[in-house]
Amino acid sequence: MSLLQGFFLLCILVAIAAFVFAAWLYLWVKRQPAVNAKILTVGEYIRSGANTFLRKEYLVLARFAGVTAILILVFLPDPIWRAGIGDNFQMFGAYLLGTVFSAIAGKIGIQIATIANTRTAEAAQRGITLSFLSAFRGGAVMGMAVVGTSLLGIILVLWVTNNATILLGFSFGASSLALFAKAGGGIFTKTADISADLVGKVELGIPEDDPRNPAVVADNVGDNVGDVAGMGADLFDSNVASMAAATVMGLALDKLPGIDLNVETVFCFAALGLLSSIIGVALAKMPEKGSPTRALNTSTYVTTAVFAVLTGLATLIFQFRWQLYVTALIGLFVGVLIGITTDYFTDDSKSPVRKVAKASETGPAFTIITGVSYGFLSVLPAMIGIAISALSAYLICAPLGGAVGSAGYQSYGMFGISMAAVGMLSIVGMIISNDAYGPIVDNARGLAEMGGLSEAVIEVTDKLDSAGNTVKAVTKGFAIGAAGLTVIALLGAFMSEVNARIVEEGLSNPLLTGFDIMDPRVFFGLLIGAAVPAVFSALLMLGVGRNAERMVGEIHRQFREIPGLQEGKEGVVPEYDKCIAIATDGALKELIPAGLFTIIITIVVGLIGGVTAIGGYLTGNIVAGLLLALFMSNAGGLWDNGKKYVESGHNGGKGSAAHKAAVVGDTVGDPFKDTAGPSINTQITVVSLVASLLSFIFLSLHLF
Amino acid sequence: MSLLQGFFLLCILVAIAAFVFAAWLYLWVKRQPAVNAKILTVGEYIRSGANTFLRKEYLVLARFAGVTAILILVFLPDPIWRAGIGDNFQMFGAYLLGTVFSAIAGKIGIQIATIANTRTAEAAQRGITLSFLSAFRGGAVMGMAVVGTSLLGIILVLWVTNNATILLGFSFGASSLALFAKAGGGIFTKTADISADLVGKVELGIPEDDPRNPAVVADNVGDNVGDVAGMGADLFDSNVASMAAATVMGLALDKLPGIDLNVETVFCFAALGLLSSIIGVALAKMPEKGSPTRALNTSTYVTTAVFAVLTGLATLIFQFRWQLYVTALIGLFVGVLIGITTDYFTDDSKSPVRKVAKASETGPAFTIITGVSYGFLSVLPAMIGIAISALSAYLICAPLGGAVGSAGYQSYGMFGISMAAVGMLSIVGMIISNDAYGPIVDNARGLAEMGGLSEAVIEVTDKLDSAGNTVKAVTKGFAIGAAGLTVIALLGAFMSEVNARIVEEGLSNPLLTGFDIMDPRVFFGLLIGAAVPAVFSALLMLGVGRNAERMVGEIHRQFREIPGLQEGKEGVVPEYDKCIAIATDGALKELIPAGLFTIIITIVVGLIGGVTAIGGYLTGNIVAGLLLALFMSNAGGLWDNGKKYVESGHNGGKGSAAHKAAVVGDTVGDPFKDTAGPSINTQITVVSLVASLLSFIFLSLHLF
Repeated sequence: MSLLQGFFLLCILVAIAAFVFAAWLYLWVKRQPAVNAKILTVGEYIRSGANTFLRKEYLVLARFAGVTAILILVFLPDPIWRAGIGDNFQMFGAYLLGTVFSAIAGKIGIQIATIANTRTAEAAQRGITLSFLSAFRGGAVMGMAVVGTSLLGIILVLWVTNNATILLGFSFGASSLALFAKAGGGIFTKTADISADLVGKVELGIPEDDPRNPAVVADNVGDNVGDVAGMGADLFDSNVASMAAATVMGLALDKLPGIDLNVETVFCFAALGLLSSIIGVALAKMPEKGSPTRALNTSTYVTTAVFAVLTGLATLIFQFRWQLYVTALIGLFVGVLIGITTDYFTDDSKSPVRKVAKASETGPAFTIITGVSYGFLSVLPAMIGIAISALSAYLICAPLGGAVGSAGYQSYGMFGISMAAVGMLSIVGMIISNDAYGPIVDNARGLAEMGGLSEAVIEVTDKLDSAGNTVKAVTKGFAIGAAGLTVIALLGAFMSEVNARIVEEGLSNPLLTGFDIMDPRVFFGLLIGAAVPAVFSALLMLGVGRNAERMVGEIHRQFREIPGLQEGKEGVVPEYDKCIAIATDGALKELIPAGLFTIIITIVVGLIGGVTAIGGYLTGNIVAGLLLALFMSNAGGLWDNGKKYVESGHNGGKGSAAHKAAVVGDTVGDPFKDTAGPSINTQITVVSLVASLLSFIFLSLHLF
Repeated sequence: MSLLQGFFLLCILVAIAAFVFAAWLYLWVKRQPAVNAKILTVGEYIRSGANTFLRKEYLVLARFAGVTAILILVFLPDPIWRAGIGDNFQMFGAYLLGTVFSAIAGKIGIQIATIANTRTAEAAQRGITLSFLSAFRGGAVMGMAVVGTSLLGIILVLWVTNNATILLGFSFGASSLALFAKAGGGIFTKTADISADLVGKVELGIPEDDPRNPAVVADNVGDNVGDVAGMGADLFDSNVASMAAATVMGLALDKLPGIDLNVETVFCFAALGLLSSIIGVALAKMPEKGSPTRALNTSTYVTTAVFAVLTGLATLIFQFRWQLYVTALIGLFVGVLIGITTDYFTDDSKSPVRKVAKASETGPAFTIITGVSYGFLSVLPAMIGIAISALSAYLICAPLGGAVGSAGYQSYGMFGISMAAVGMLSIVGMIISNDAYGPIVDNARGLAEMGGLSEAVIEVTDKLDSAGNTVKAVTKGFAIGAAGLTVIALLGAFMSEVNARIVEEGLSNPLLTGFDIMDPRVFFGLLIGAAVPAVFSALLMLGVGRNAERMVGEIHRQFREIPGLQEGKEGVVPEYDKCIAIATDGALKELIPAGLFTIIITIVVGLIGGVTAIGGYLTGNIVAGLLLALFMSNAGGLWDNGKKYVESGHNGGKGSAAHKAAVVGDTVGDPFKDTAGPSINTQITVVSLVASLLSFIFLSLHLF
């Protein structure tokens, strides 16, 4: 057994350990008492609503994936009439496996989240420690499931096919699902959230989470499908993509004389990253008097430290290049750093949130202008962080490949960037755990309110919820940073794929050595690629608006037609499922144009300017995509916390003019931070993979 | 006399003709009757306010320019101790000439605009034809002055120094002034506009342009300093930069064997462009029953047609390359096309404005989300337009320079892009005339109201004003498109400069053949460059917010402390000058951090990654800058017209909830479209020129 196969085995073992651990966590959470009838009833509504969405989503996805899979079977990696069906069948299988594995992880996440929410709500009666653990361990089930399945899938594909290109197919499957889960879930959750607030809080003046509101269950379902399943699929996607990019480039590197031990490091580090996350989750706890935010952050730091020690030892034992170790740590460090700067712009103890709250006193226009301004400012540190980690990763690793200017130098440099992405994503298991914690406690807070639990209990859930919001900003920054490095690595993988293709098929095209900005086709691609994330975001946000319009109509209808509903007559229950159905159908419908647009314009650019234009196009897409994703996520978080800051009694407090203005900011921020912003990651990944997979067409068929 | 000198002479003659024509127009406008005492009084306030701002601005600028000029004298184009003072003295002079010429053009523009506004208001009593002509000819004075001085300055510098690098110094002078005029003027105008609306319309419910409002004169002054002087300086800057880029690359081309007749074409076309604008302005008229929008557009089309015919004839007579002719026409055509698509997104007879008005019925958050979404969508056609014109200009012209891959091929291709920019900017005289028309009629409308003219007269000025708003959107799109092509050309000029420097000084650095995206320094620069326009915009918008806060305080003070002011007691006049002083001082103060930030970060990136990183940095800056400039300008215009659409009686009309929401959109859009959005052009140009001028430092001093 080679060393690489040894690490494959290690990955499988750690993945199995993660599953076992997840099962234990699952059972632990499920064992927690749940007796409050009201909570159980509403919890059941949420669970069945979330499952309805998931079922419909997977149904639409299955059709989409089916068509795509058949196209793959015929055309990829090579048209069937040119190279037979062998590879195509593998690619077909890998693609389907990618969608299925990601779907399973999402399903597990929803399953546990909709159990953990009721347990967390009830546990709050018995103290914050237990309540915290119920939510955190619920989230951790998702974390373990996502990373375990992604690792297992990658190993499976590589072991069976021994072909890195096929791995891109697996990654494409994961991205396809992520696009649906993230963008579709994002439209769903914001449709419900906005509509519920609009009619409930603004028009009728009834509180958030009031059970009379027909959209309230849809809103809670939305937290699960958007934040749990969506975020999970997103990070599943990034994790797979970063490893796929590293594998493609690492295996290409191995073919160069005198270079080896690259890909081994990737798998060893990935396995140790998951192991570190398991340890971090297992050690997490929160004292009765402690702060949940600190507890979450401590787990992250513990995981990071364990990872650094374990990979350091592995580097010594297996004599990996120390440069790869340093690069992975830089990636990880920059990821944490981006999270911290994101926190600065969205934390209510810092200046930006307070300035937004203060500006709200002057009126909603100033809430918006100030929020947009700080959102723009927040882009800088993250961009500098990604820029510096990419530059240093390249410069540290490139000399391993040979003299400056040699093919090995460049390839090893790009491989270094993918290694930084792998390092950044190594602790993704812990990141997902922290992230999924958020919607669980958010739900728990709502359930505690609807279940009529005491004020003191609601206060406990409030405290947990607030920690969830803080940590969410950090994990979101982290996710975008990781996606940033990953897509840069995918650009390297794209070039690697194109060149492999040229060599294998003996094409007359010159080998790509890079993409020259002064080449007009590159510049052409750059400009158009930069416009794509803007258009994609616009289509999603307009979709939310249209969908919310439909749902508001339905809420109005119910209040009008169901007697006793508005007055809150005992026993009168709104038709929650109608609202869920509207959110579901609308989300999937509104998602299609955005998805199709990005794929079609990629193909058009490729047919006009060939692989050269695609290089520029991907770059423009990455650069503008990161810019807009950071801007929208951070501005959204800022407005959200600005509103909460005002609600906690500042700048006039609840009901003041400043509060009204802050609510406008929060509503604008909703689709920014939960629909468009985080979907851009996935959009970039999908486009990068489509470009890589279709490169053979663009090589032979292009206008200029 | 060589052919080039002949065209220099032609440029001078046409510039003189433009000055003579401007003088005639000036006198014509001034001769129009102005008798209404109230109008004259307020008009005088505006005139003196605008001049106060200009004086202060030029004073601050003089200090800034003085320091910069001395730095230039010592360091540029070469440190004085290395190459003597000869060239440095020329650069020093050219820089100062650039600032002074642009300042003179701005001063002339303000001078005539503050005369034309009163004349236009009073002429409205005698019919729309005369009123239209007063405003249009007033604007045309500015148009003629800007293009005449820019052409004259360029010829002067080239004739005296015969050195294209020195021309970049002239261009840098123009950009410095433009940065102050555009960004400073933008902060001024929106400070006044927002504060006046906030206290007047929102708090006290008094109408727009009510003379009791202490900020109302500052608001009218703002239209002049922001839109007249600012836009003039911006287009002066773009015009000079496009010709400087074309000259730098054209002269470098001429050194290659077998290639000539490039730069000649640039100057011939520029002269004919100005001539066409003169003809277009002279022919402009508007029948009493006609539409002012159509009259303005017709003049643009006439100018375009005259230009096409004249340059076609010149190409035949002087045997220019037909490729250059075609390229110039493509640039011009795409410019008009971008204007038209911009119009689609901001015209109230089209879907986006109506959708925003409709969304306003649901509340301000939806006004914002919908506006942001359409703003994002509006980016696509313009980006595609710029991308296609750059690609086709390159591909059409490159073969003139030799075989594919030769140095001549690439150089001629980039020269082709600069030729497209020259073509797009050829009719800039007409564009400025149309653009300056806007603030003049806007002022006239206010003056008619304050002068107590009849409803019918105010209706005439309303009609003229509305045309101004429509045309403004078009000219703004045009300005951004032109800046886009210009800065791409400047990227070529940057490379050209770097290589010239390497050859001249026999440096060991390899000659630049392009900027490879896969080079980590390029990518590093790309990411950071992309963040700069966002941060720059944020700093300007936050500056507007802070400044508006100060002014609102002052307005409140006046209403509180001046007895009889709020009640409108006869003879009680607010202290208009205090508000003007606040807007002025604040604008200049708030501008400094934004300006310094962009210059310092450029230098830091250059010192880290050398000219290679700067190549990426400029590209990131261009791509993200265009994206944000288009987004902010168009979203702002969309909200503005959305509000006007509601005010004209739709979706509930004035005073409705939809109207309140639309006002929020308009207020958010104000700094978007009049402060940040259009300043980004200038920011990009300044950064490009700083990079070119300092390239010798980055060549020898860099970390990686």
